[in-house]
Amino acid sequence: MDTLTLKSSIIHFLKEDLGSGDITSQAIFPPDTPGKASFVAKTDFICAGMEIAAEVFKTRIPHLQYESSEDGRSVKVGEEVFTCKGPVLELLQAERVALNIVQHLCGIATLTNSFVQNVSDLPVKIVDTRKTTPGLRTLEKYAVRVGGGYNHRFNLADGIMIKDNHIAACGSISEAVNRVRQHAPHTLKIEVETEDIDQVQQCLEAKVDIIMLDNMPPELMKKAVTVINKRALVEASGGVNLMNIREIAETGVDIISIGALTHSAPSSDISMKLSTQTP
Amino acid sequence: MDTLTLKSSIIHFLKEDLGSGDITSQAIFPPDTPGKASFVAKTDFICAGMEIAAEVFKTRIPHLQYESSEDGRSVKVGEEVFTCKGPVLELLQAERVALNIVQHLCGIATLTNSFVQNVSDLPVKIVDTRKTTPGLRTLEKYAVRVGGGYNHRFNLADGIMIKDNHIAACGSISEAVNRVRQHAPHTLKIEVETEDIDQVQQCLEAKVDIIMLDNMPPELMKKAVTVINKRALVEASGGVNLMNIREIAETGVDIISIGALTHSAPSSDISMKLSTQTP
Amino acid sequence: MDTLTLKSSIIHFLKEDLGSGDITSQAIFPPDTPGKASFVAKTDFICAGMEIAAEVFKTRIPHLQYESSEDGRSVKVGEEVFTCKGPVLELLQAERVALNIVQHLCGIATLTNSFVQNVSDLPVKIVDTRKTTPGLRTLEKYAVRVGGGYNHRFNLADGIMIKDNHIAACGSISEAVNRVRQHAPHTLKIEVETEDIDQVQQCLEAKVDIIMLDNMPPELMKKAVTVINKRALVEASGGVNLMNIREIAETGVDIISIGALTHSAPSSDISMKLSTQTP
Amino acid sequence: MDTLTLKSSIIHFLKEDLGSGDITSQAIFPPDTPGKASFVAKTDFICAGMEIAAEVFKTRIPHLQYESSEDGRSVKVGEEVFTCKGPVLELLQAERVALNIVQHLCGIATLTNSFVQNVSDLPVKIVDTRKTTPGLRTLEKYAVRVGGGYNHRFNLADGIMIKDNHIAACGSISEAVNRVRQHAPHTLKIEVETEDIDQVQQCLEAKVDIIMLDNMPPELMKKAVTVINKRALVEASGGVNLMNIREIAETGVDIISIGALTHSAPSSDISMKLSTQTP
Amino acid sequence: MDTLTLKSSIIHFLKEDLGSGDITSQAIFPPDTPGKASFVAKTDFICAGMEIAAEVFKTRIPHLQYESSEDGRSVKVGEEVFTCKGPVLELLQAERVALNIVQHLCGIATLTNSFVQNVSDLPVKIVDTRKTTPGLRTLEKYAVRVGGGYNHRFNLADGIMIKDNHIAACGSISEAVNRVRQHAPHTLKIEVETEDIDQVQQCLEAKVDIIMLDNMPPELMKKAVTVINKRALVEASGGVNLMNIREIAETGVDIISIGALTHSAPSSDISMKLSTQTP
Amino acid sequence: MDTLTLKSSIIHFLKEDLGSGDITSQAIFPPDTPGKASFVAKTDFICAGMEIAAEVFKTRIPHLQYESSEDGRSVKVGEEVFTCKGPVLELLQAERVALNIVQHLCGIATLTNSFVQNVSDLPVKIVDTRKTTPGLRTLEKYAVRVGGGYNHRFNLADGIMIKDNHIAACGSISEAVNRVRQHAPHTLKIEVETEDIDQVQQCLEAKVDIIMLDNMPPELMKKAVTVINKRALVEASGGVNLMNIREIAETGVDIISIGALTHSAPSSDISMKLSTQTP
Repeated sequence: MDTLTLKSSIIHFLKEDLGSGDITSQAIFPPDTPGKASFVAKTDFICAGMEIAAEVFKTRIPHLQYESSEDGRSVKVGEEVFTCKGPVLELLQAERVALNIVQHLCGIATLTNSFVQNVSDLPVKIVDTRKTTPGLRTLEKYAVRVGGGYNHRFNLADGIMIKDNHIAACGSISEAVNRVRQHAPHTLKIEVETEDIDQVQQCLEAKVDIIMLDNMPPELMKKAVTVINKRALVEASGGVNLMNIREIAETGVDIISIGALTHSAPSSDISMKLSTQTP
Repeated sequence: MDTLTLKSSIIHFLKEDLGSGDITSQAIFPPDTPGKASFVAKTDFICAGMEIAAEVFKTRIPHLQYESSEDGRSVKVGEEVFTCKGPVLELLQAERVALNIVQHLCGIATLTNSFVQNVSDLPVKIVDTRKTTPGLRTLEKYAVRVGGGYNHRFNLADGIMIKDNHIAACGSISEAVNRVRQHAPHTLKIEVETEDIDQVQQCLEAKVDIIMLDNMPPELMKKAVTVINKRALVEASGGVNLMNIREIAETGVDIISIGALTHSAPSSDISMKLSTQTP
Repeated sequence: MDTLTLKSSIIHFLKEDLGSGDITSQAIFPPDTPGKASFVAKTDFICAGMEIAAEVFKTRIPHLQYESSEDGRSVKVGEEVFTCKGPVLELLQAERVALNIVQHLCGIATLTNSFVQNVSDLPVKIVDTRKTTPGLRTLEKYAVRVGGGYNHRFNLADGIMIKDNHIAACGSISEAVNRVRQHAPHTLKIEVETEDIDQVQQCLEAKVDIIMLDNMPPELMKKAVTVINKRALVEASGGVNLMNIREIAETGVDIISIGALTHSAPSSDISMKLSTQTP
Repeated sequence: MDTLTLKSSIIHFLKEDLGSGDITSQAIFPPDTPGKASFVAKTDFICAGMEIAAEVFKTRIPHLQYESSEDGRSVKVGEEVFTCKGPVLELLQAERVALNIVQHLCGIATLTNSFVQNVSDLPVKIVDTRKTTPGLRTLEKYAVRVGGGYNHRFNLADGIMIKDNHIAACGSISEAVNRVRQHAPHTLKIEVETEDIDQVQQCLEAKVDIIMLDNMPPELMKKAVTVINKRALVEASGGVNLMNIREIAETGVDIISIGALTHSAPSSDISMKLSTQTP
Repeated sequence: MDTLTLKSSIIHFLKEDLGSGDITSQAIFPPDTPGKASFVAKTDFICAGMEIAAEVFKTRIPHLQYESSEDGRSVKVGEEVFTCKGPVLELLQAERVALNIVQHLCGIATLTNSFVQNVSDLPVKIVDTRKTTPGLRTLEKYAVRVGGGYNHRFNLADGIMIKDNHIAACGSISEAVNRVRQHAPHTLKIEVETEDIDQVQQCLEAKVDIIMLDNMPPELMKKAVTVINKRALVEASGGVNLMNIREIAETGVDIISIGALTHSAPSSDISMKLSTQTP
Repeated sequence: MDTLTLKSSIIHFLKEDLGSGDITSQAIFPPDTPGKASFVAKTDFICAGMEIAAEVFKTRIPHLQYESSEDGRSVKVGEEVFTCKGPVLELLQAERVALNIVQHLCGIATLTNSFVQNVSDLPVKIVDTRKTTPGLRTLEKYAVRVGGGYNHRFNLADGIMIKDNHIAACGSISEAVNRVRQHAPHTLKIEVETEDIDQVQQCLEAKVDIIMLDNMPPELMKKAVTVINKRALVEASGGVNLMNIREIAETGVDIISIGALTHSAPSSDISMKLSTQTP
């Protein structure tokens, strides 16, 4: 959540929503009418992204006064999660972008937290994937952490993942691992996607760091975990949902990665109340 | 879906996913290994965004050969919706961004279509809102059209919407409408958000073009429609879902706007199959 | 005149004028010599854009102290319209860009005001067009408003204008209007360009919102106004100048659009006086 | 007129005019309807910027076929100056930006040419200034050359101009020249602004390369030219117009700089004719 | 060396060198004079970056014909390493940027190769650091690979490096490692900087993946290697030069990182010969 | 060293080094732990670029408190040249970029100063060339000035340099000079590259402002200086190093240009000490 990177995105988002100007509000409010805005929860959710909302408003109101709920907190319907003061005209022009972001991030944190709570008594990490909304990856991965999850690699450069096509092109897992060891920075672990126990065995021989069990049925996962026997991290992936997460976690895998955290979390419902103030 | 605007977004998205490079694939594939990629449906959905996928691949493969399913078509699980050819290295580096976009757009088109089908025998339009994902508004609004919906305003400049805060600041609906008429281009219609029949009456007196019925119960909507009697377009908004859409539509409103179309549509499941080709 | 959008333009303009640096002033002034700059009118004009000038100086002098004449005021030769303080080096490096902008905007406001004054006793609005200087549309349209004019659509998305080519492609005005009604957001009015009374009649049948009379002689305009009889807004366009504006206005049209407001207004003459100050 | 720099400006201009899309044309034209566009002169002018128009259309139509009148040619009303082919939808979306640019550039070339013709029998160069439209300097200075004029410095870095404030800060012209000689690249000539013969004398003693006579009456210019006696280039500046240009030129100055060339040239009138073609 | 990222950098570099245009060449060459350019070695070096040179020229000459020496090849003085054809004007405007890049990259590859050759019989990898030229990291790290070296992490996100300040803030190496394990993606190895054997022991207890020996004298390194005994990768860092590299390598470390590869490699001398061609 | 231009470069550099975030430091430091950073000299050098370092830190720490050594000062090993305060997390994320810049600029200033000291008793200027690192030209040319050198042209637009290819294309030096005089702004001097006395003579006849002696042996330079006899500035160029600079200077040339100043200066060694503070 580096503000450096965030600022140019926010300006881009604000321009998208503003077009050539807020025709309605400009006609009605003089530039200096003071106001106060509050974000109010219309459903329960895990709070995420309130500092991002603050950054959106700061882009328009340089010395913004604001208060915000702490990210990660469990919020009940009716609670205020963010309040700030500034010219009404600026508040209205930031409203939609700020809401669109926090509703999305709270949605992700809330869904992530459902998965996390489901397996909280087991030694397993819930992680995200690269199946994120284009342009929002850093924010969405932040929301996953807020919800109690962990992050998988951020992009193609900060994690090595050898998949079926890579293996096929090399002829074998060991050859694929060798080529990658020759090329990649030594700071990155090597992860290989496997479909059966034979591939798992090849991974162990090639001394890979992480073995992904791709779309395996739980009983096969269990067997793979036994075979691997702590010699590599074990990641389960594919078709994970709230119905089967517990069964998967109980196979003993270390990590479960879930694309739905970021690509299918419904938005949390939040609305902005605005009051005009006497200065 | 103007390609001019699209191209810089796509480059931004590709850089987000690429970071300092696809370490894994660069270690394994020489730059000129030819391949063929297919997008395969893993669920049923309404096809949307295939030309955007093509633009993503074109960014990396200048003279791309591709075939794609027509947007708007109802796709069944197992069907190929997009195929293209090019260097494997380029295909892999475009894969995730292309999939993330089309899965999202197909999800929106599919959800929109569910709403549209529900009321297809009634003279009502399903429209979206400004509750879109930051950075993706144009694409998401395109997907709504593909799904059979219509678009509400794209940004704060191409539609006038007088809300409760505007009315409060002016003292009355008529004063708010007057101020806007003085300021806004004559090319824009004036829409006013109302909460009760009294406000609807004020709108009619002020000769507004569109009256939004905000979060009214269906019986009140019905009454409002009768009062308005074709003197303005009538838009229903707030809390619309697949359970209540029909009841709302039957009140006789002209337009129903639904934020969930763009902010809560789950992603459609699509995967990319890759085959290496002899040149 | 949203500052968000403005700032990146101003930086672009300053870089254009600066190149790799103000070689002359850097050789002569130490970075901290304080100074005071005044913009002085060399002719009479309508003041426009002084806050934009302030934004230009603020880009270089973060906590700028300045005073400026109110936009819209009628300024006489010799008056100071803007004064600010800051390091001489920064003042000199902002001078030319700030002057180039305000001279241009004052020119537009002044020309617009001449048209407006000419017909001030008639119920007609003077509006601009899309014939603006590339990159400066928002600023130029602001200057038109300052001069007492109104704005036509800002871009191709926030107004519908059906022209001869559109009509020809559809076969008839009614078909063109139908296609647009199917596609466009319901928040936009529909305007159609007409050349004769027959087309005006077709517009009325198609219930368009605005009828543009394109390059019609005044007597034909008068007839069109009578035919339309308040059933649509009437806009006159084409070849309007200070000699014929009154005759056109007297035909009873509601709106007169004039490209020359923005594409042919001569610059108002303003110069910057600089004095070095003891801190 | 480097295309590298031009392209990003053109994209910026097109986005400004397009907003979220050409709602009207998209509703009416399928993306592949072929058409032909012609730019037709509605007044006489000097042709300038036709390759820029081509670049605008190329941004939307990659392999554009076009023909254009040569820049610098004297065009008569009714002539076609530019024709191109492509999808109607793309032609319409490029039309306004292309016209806005060429009308502006033809206006500048035409005005410049009037000045140049006025003194064509005298050994004097007409040059522009930095009083250009922000964002368009390179294009406007190109149009000045097309009209027969020459360019003064492009920005603060590629020419040294010592003005009254610089002189005042240094105490004398010679000290100002010394400081600049110590600091500036040896590739740049040194120009000094003077107000009277005494300052001209000081310039000669300091061996400056160019002496600007700022707002001097013609008789004083004549005297200055005699005093300078070819020991430096002589530039006349300030208040030059078509009425006094000849008198100024006859004083024997080498160069006359005129801000109005770029800041007050009225746009040349050009319109686009569009015909739909069978492919 | 992803072309996507490269292109915008190259355009930025070309604009830096071009300013408002190549005044000299534009005065002399018509835009279509054909020419041929050759890059000729003025010293011996390892060839690196020829495809980047090609990208520079392609930015100006769309369908460039070129031939280039293979990166990694040992080039002798007088050899041609790159030739291409195109308009002389475009060749001259790309020349300096292309040369500045390849001279720098060849310099880095050559210096890297000197280090690599020095220890080519030992099982040690030479790697770079983050001490790169701002804006050129990806290119410089590519040149290191061309010279036979390997890459350390590309940025702060794709490698974990716990340094003295991190350890001090946590109180102990084990606490620092714990905190990082809780926060960081599981795809990244953990590297810790150590100054003495005690810290090395703590690293082994914390099961870190990579132990950096920071500025240790060779005898201490040797001892550390023995203590570690293959339980972690060992990286030597600090003050490495061509005089001491062999002694360091002989301590048995796995990796030697050297900042000088990228921050102090002298440029290889290459010049461009240009010949004008008959078309 | 205009901060306007600098800021966007610094943000670009920081993003390059940050990637998707400083994984290590974010895991360890809370955002508000205060700290103090000092840059300490590890070798002797001429200090250059400390204000740039400050700008880097300011990008992350808005109201930065800092102290810095004056640029141009001769610094001894062990001295602190820059100190600042701020959150440790921000200091660590700015560290590498700030150091990479100042180490490079101090290296350039130091090498430049060696050349300058060598000929400090002679009336000759040491100047740089366009052989700079892409993206860093303005900063590198600043460092040359700090080291006591002067700047040659910044880009192709702010100096005229007629080279062998230009001459060949025109048939003669005089024709090349004529064409340039017709085209170029009158504010620029004309420099011509020569290889022998005959060409020098042609330059004198064409009254060029600067004659470059390209790769001439010292005795030939001496002869050229005599022939020119103050009628033009004389610049020596090609193969200049610390061994031959004095001999070249003694030929009487006015200017010696040296590419190595910017393309081959080894980085000065500077490290950052960080201490955590109680607030």
